[in-house]
Amino acid sequence: MPTTHASATLDTVQQILAQGYPLDQIRRDFPALQQQVNGQPLMYLDTAASCHKPRVLVERIQQLYLEQYAKPHEKHPMSQAITGQLEHTRQQVADLLNASKEEIVFVRGCTEGINLVATGFERALLQEGDEVIVTMMAHHSNYLPWELACHQTKALLKVLPITGSGEIDLNQLADAITDKTRLIAVEHSSHVLGTINPIQQIVALAHKRGNIAVFVDGAQAAPHMPVDMRELGCDFYTFSAHKMGGPSGVGVLYGRQKWLKKLPPYQLGEEMVDKVSIARRVSTTESTFQDPPKRFEGGTPAFVEIIGFGAVIDYLNGIGRAKIQQYEESLLHYAQEQLEPLERVRIVGTAPEKEPLVSFTLEGIEATKAESWFNEHTGIALRAGELSAQPLMKSLGLKGVLRISLGYFNTVQEIDQFTDALQQCIREEG
Amino acid sequence: MPTTHASATLDTVQQILAQGYPLDQIRRDFPALQQQVNGQPLMYLDTAASCHKPRVLVERIQQLYLEQYAKPHEKHPMSQAITGQLEHTRQQVADLLNASKEEIVFVRGCTEGINLVATGFERALLQEGDEVIVTMMAHHSNYLPWELACHQTKALLKVLPITGSGEIDLNQLADAITDKTRLIAVEHSSHVLGTINPIQQIVALAHKRGNIAVFVDGAQAAPHMPVDMRELGCDFYTFSAHKMGGPSGVGVLYGRQKWLKKLPPYQLGEEMVDKVSIARRVSTTESTFQDPPKRFEGGTPAFVEIIGFGAVIDYLNGIGRAKIQQYEESLLHYAQEQLEPLERVRIVGTAPEKEPLVSFTLEGIEATKAESWFNEHTGIALRAGELSAQPLMKSLGLKGVLRISLGYFNTVQEIDQFTDALQQCIREEG
Repeated sequence: MPTTHASATLDTVQQILAQGYPLDQIRRDFPALQQQVNGQPLMYLDTAASCHKPRVLVERIQQLYLEQYAKPHEKHPMSQAITGQLEHTRQQVADLLNASKEEIVFVRGCTEGINLVATGFERALLQEGDEVIVTMMAHHSNYLPWELACHQTKALLKVLPITGSGEIDLNQLADAITDKTRLIAVEHSSHVLGTINPIQQIVALAHKRGNIAVFVDGAQAAPHMPVDMRELGCDFYTFSAHKMGGPSGVGVLYGRQKWLKKLPPYQLGEEMVDKVSIARRVSTTESTFQDPPKRFEGGTPAFVEIIGFGAVIDYLNGIGRAKIQQYEESLLHYAQEQLEPLERVRIVGTAPEKEPLVSFTLEGIEATKAESWFNEHTGIALRAGELSAQPLMKSLGLKGVLRISLGYFNTVQEIDQFTDALQQCIREEG
Repeated sequence: MPTTHASATLDTVQQILAQGYPLDQIRRDFPALQQQVNGQPLMYLDTAASCHKPRVLVERIQQLYLEQYAKPHEKHPMSQAITGQLEHTRQQVADLLNASKEEIVFVRGCTEGINLVATGFERALLQEGDEVIVTMMAHHSNYLPWELACHQTKALLKVLPITGSGEIDLNQLADAITDKTRLIAVEHSSHVLGTINPIQQIVALAHKRGNIAVFVDGAQAAPHMPVDMRELGCDFYTFSAHKMGGPSGVGVLYGRQKWLKKLPPYQLGEEMVDKVSIARRVSTTESTFQDPPKRFEGGTPAFVEIIGFGAVIDYLNGIGRAKIQQYEESLLHYAQEQLEPLERVRIVGTAPEKEPLVSFTLEGIEATKAESWFNEHTGIALRAGELSAQPLMKSLGLKGVLRISLGYFNTVQEIDQFTDALQQCIREEG
């Protein structure tokens, strides 16, 4: 049995459980968590990569495919029913974000959400000499699309450095903003450092200086905390369903109407167009497009999976998103408390407000070597390496990190077991 | 009981059934077909919009989400297993098309396949004065993306007219090709007219004139006939899984390596990039990208649904794709034979080689009015209107058509019932 260490952070976890956080029920709702890996119970510490699925998701998808299936947006009764369900899900997502339906675009995932907006800026909203600001903590997905948009338009891409604790320095950001700044792309929270960024203050800085769009990558934040578009005040926000227990192939892009209306179409095709006419002159279009959000949803969407995501939203709301945040945060504090005192362990990312993930390095052991040890000897799923953040790693002088990331189904016992396993790894590999 | 009309076409259907086409088994494999709509058995004549799902799809998806789930492309054992399955599915798709794995890009659907290539041409391969040819029979999805690419680059978009029977005139195509032609986008078969276009001859014309890419929209053909990339000789081919019984949110883009290597990335993010460096000069990129097909698959794909599609490919291969084609073709001939002699019915699209769909107009009754009658009085799902082909409708002088489209689970009895219902509709609405 692993050692459990009495402490204030442990007390907090136990208090939350005593107040009725339904951990046992949740674990029963996730059949995948019951399996064995390497002859040991699966311990899933990789939710930041992707989250396991509650049974309700599959039940809903099964019902849709085998009983209710029809392509949306047609006239026959089955299609009308599906269209209604798709739009109901859009409302669920709007409610989740405290936004309105017209601000919700369904995409494949966070990466597509970013590319959609970056391509729109490339096609219509950026000119030579304009400036876009990204941060050094960006996931490649929130860096490369902006780099391309700037490359195509001869705009300038500025990369904001971060502080020693892994935070954005708001003074540096204020200095980086100029009259040429058109957009600031920022992470709600960092997938490596865990840092929760002060979106409201960033928005305030940007909007004070003019009509600067603030684009927020919510991939790591949306699964772990209630997010409120009116409160954050950002212009765009995007996240992936699969990181919060939803299906693969579904994501959400929130955009203020003001900005969505300025953006040109992304993928052109059925449903996003209104009238299609063959232009009488060369190189013009006389076609007219639907208003947002439809304008950005060309072609048949992953509608079964989108509606399936609605069942997961209901499931999460049933537990309570604030309760999930509270529980995960208490686990994070417990995990950090266990890892901090360990010899040869150095936590990377020490901001006071963090997502439930801990990245760290091991003195004298390469992260990927330790990862291999876990993969060969344990049932623990975690991730190591550059974590799709090469510029950040370079700026930190690191080749890579080990990362454990927590979900609403993880337990204190798992953290204890992980801590024991990590010490064994250090003994054997060090 | 509906009337069944003895005829040579009926004999052919019955022969195919007698030779073992497993129609009864197939119908049992599709639970959705057992349901009632408007108090009558569902008769699904809308496969050209989307196809119903065999039970194997849902069984595979359930297994993946509840037992085998992990994000691909990581190092832990569950992830490695999923990566293996994803790449196995890529091989299945390659085999389906007689192509190689490196030529298969997974996309959301046909619309994304087209947009991916059109955006690549927009970003890197089209210049002012270049020419792109599309056809008058194009679905909006195979028209608008090319129009946008031409608009952004000041290239010229040429729209090839069609003949009275709804076919491409190869002489007209030969005349339209110039030294400035960079790409010809054509339908393997038309979603309105049914016409199967002579891809091999179009490719021969294009390639004889130079380095002209031939892009084929296979949305309507791939579900209904074996398609062989080596035989067709085209440079790009795309289709959607959902139209052949696969999940929503999954499509395939085939591209010759020669062309995929020329195309710049589409959506930028994780998995498609190799090294990410912050450029030292303004507006350049020093990042390097993966080789195709990975270069075009940025972000987490709809991997569960993609692997689920693999189960459907196995299912279709189990029946035999050539057998499916033969059966559907025999149903088509029977359906056309029933509809042709009806007073006030005019079939639109009379090419000798057609996909299993029949579009038609009713003299004196608007298509959408007849559609409403079917939706109110019957269990028949069909489609009517402009069918996302406004330029074609305008060129035909039509406001819209009614379309029935057949799948591998439809029956002669359904066609008889439909014919009877259509006659009743004409009597009541005419």
